[in-house]
Amino acid sequence: MSRSVVAVDWGTSSFRAYRLDAQGAIVDRRETAGGILRVRGGDFAAALLAEVEDWLKQDPDALVILSGMIGSRQGWRELPYVDCPASLADIAAGLERVDWGEGEAWIVPGLLDESRAHQPDVMRGEETQVLGALSALGAQQGLICLPGTHSKWVRVDGGAIAGFATYMTGEVYDLLQGHSILSRLMTKGAVNADRWFLEGVTLAQEGGLLNRLFTARSRVLAGDLPEAEVRSYLSGLLIGDELASALTEADRTVHLLGAPALTALYEAALTRLGHEVVVLEADAVAAGLFALAQHLMPAEG
Amino acid sequence: MSRSVVAVDWGTSSFRAYRLDAQGAIVDRRETAGGILRVRGGDFAAALLAEVEDWLKQDPDALVILSGMIGSRQGWRELPYVDCPASLADIAAGLERVDWGEGEAWIVPGLLDESRAHQPDVMRGEETQVLGALSALGAQQGLICLPGTHSKWVRVDGGAIAGFATYMTGEVYDLLQGHSILSRLMTKGAVNADRWFLEGVTLAQEGGLLNRLFTARSRVLAGDLPEAEVRSYLSGLLIGDELASALTEADRTVHLLGAPALTALYEAALTRLGHEVVVLEADAVAAGLFALAQHLMPAEG
Repeated sequence: MSRSVVAVDWGTSSFRAYRLDAQGAIVDRRETAGGILRVRGGDFAAALLAEVEDWLKQDPDALVILSGMIGSRQGWRELPYVDCPASLADIAAGLERVDWGEGEAWIVPGLLDESRAHQPDVMRGEETQVLGALSALGAQQGLICLPGTHSKWVRVDGGAIAGFATYMTGEVYDLLQGHSILSRLMTKGAVNADRWFLEGVTLAQEGGLLNRLFTARSRVLAGDLPEAEVRSYLSGLLIGDELASALTEADRTVHLLGAPALTALYEAALTRLGHEVVVLEADAVAAGLFALAQHLMPAEG
Repeated sequence: MSRSVVAVDWGTSSFRAYRLDAQGAIVDRRETAGGILRVRGGDFAAALLAEVEDWLKQDPDALVILSGMIGSRQGWRELPYVDCPASLADIAAGLERVDWGEGEAWIVPGLLDESRAHQPDVMRGEETQVLGALSALGAQQGLICLPGTHSKWVRVDGGAIAGFATYMTGEVYDLLQGHSILSRLMTKGAVNADRWFLEGVTLAQEGGLLNRLFTARSRVLAGDLPEAEVRSYLSGLLIGDELASALTEADRTVHLLGAPALTALYEAALTRLGHEVVVLEADAVAAGLFALAQHLMPAEG
């Protein structure tokens, strides 16, 4: 049996949906700011229907599959984490069906990595993106970086997710921009992979992030940094600090998966530090959700 | 000639004043939330008079001396920074008098350290505290830490301030507590130098701060960290990261200068990492302002 799929990446602050045909090709897509925190009264069924009712009317038999924070305590239903290492089949085994008075709908579980002492890590949503990108890596060992508010560094091996670590890079940047003594210096200019961004990346390799952040202010006061470059410089310091910790000597190649504006910054930073970069397909989440959906359908023939 | 002194440490968010007799002994003191950002319409003369008018009435001949952000662009008058290395006499040479229709009043200049490439640093106010503490160190080399929103690490040598570096430790803690995904986990418990604080200090020595901060969340989710200990743990991670960068192998002893609640945390962290700690007199700013005031008075005899 082959069915079409409504694939949804439902995060804290955004809702991304794909209409996929029975072969997994993207027929339509939409993205809104309707993240789980925006859902009134916890009525996720009504919120989902409002977003994709037209697709379901055209195709009532479509299988709906949802990943991301929708499966967290703040979401529709809290699903237990699946332990690492985790294959596609392991994650599919953790899928849970929700009843909502419409067609068949399932939620994808998140992952837990407890392999490092004092440093457990969790994700909800990125595992599905990684599953969708795994076909590009095959069975080889690899390192995938998903930059963002909470950047994820995922190690894959033999077609499974071996483990991962989260970095609060994007959130710390937003905190500095929104609420810190540096905020006043962060109103001008765009963040570009320019000279100042790369200088931040390079200086961050020496450590001392809490001091380096302050130098964005003191360098402006000392006439050593143009105010319009403060955002690029701070972005370089933060991403550079993340890279200094996330990469080992053995990590020659890094696979990037994310929004183009962000992967471009990470690509420039990684190249500066001598790494090879492979940019993966940004719609990997749709491919991952489709792959999981296949586990819910009886095999053909 | 010997005169009494009204010594003021006037920062961004606080106003601390000391009434000193002609020998520098503290006769009276007061502290308010009247930092420079609270001064309406930039009328610093009126604000100062409102704070210390009673002292000046009793002693119209008192010399008024002010240090801190009052000498910045956002303050009463922007004074140029004095370059490091800077002795008491160098800083005294940069004092500037302000006319305000009352008795004699002077502002203390801040310091600039441009000795490290790409890493200039600035301070306004802490230099006066260090001057007041220098008598405890004499002419020896030493390292003084002034913990706070922006912690300062000051190297002194031969009775002068040789150089310094600023760490945004306290501000990043406040940002996490006030505005981050960790905020919800930071409502319980106090920050203590307990087991979790010290574990944060120790783990921070391995680097990767942007990842370690996220583990405060993932460890709670994994049942590995009590929620009431998140604040102590994060405080330990941040102070530990600061110490990992600020100290070199050669730094056996660290002198601490600041509020007791904060110096207690730093003392515990430094002791855990094998350093000797000397806690300096917290009213050092009054002694520093008095020492600077002596440079404004004709020598006796």
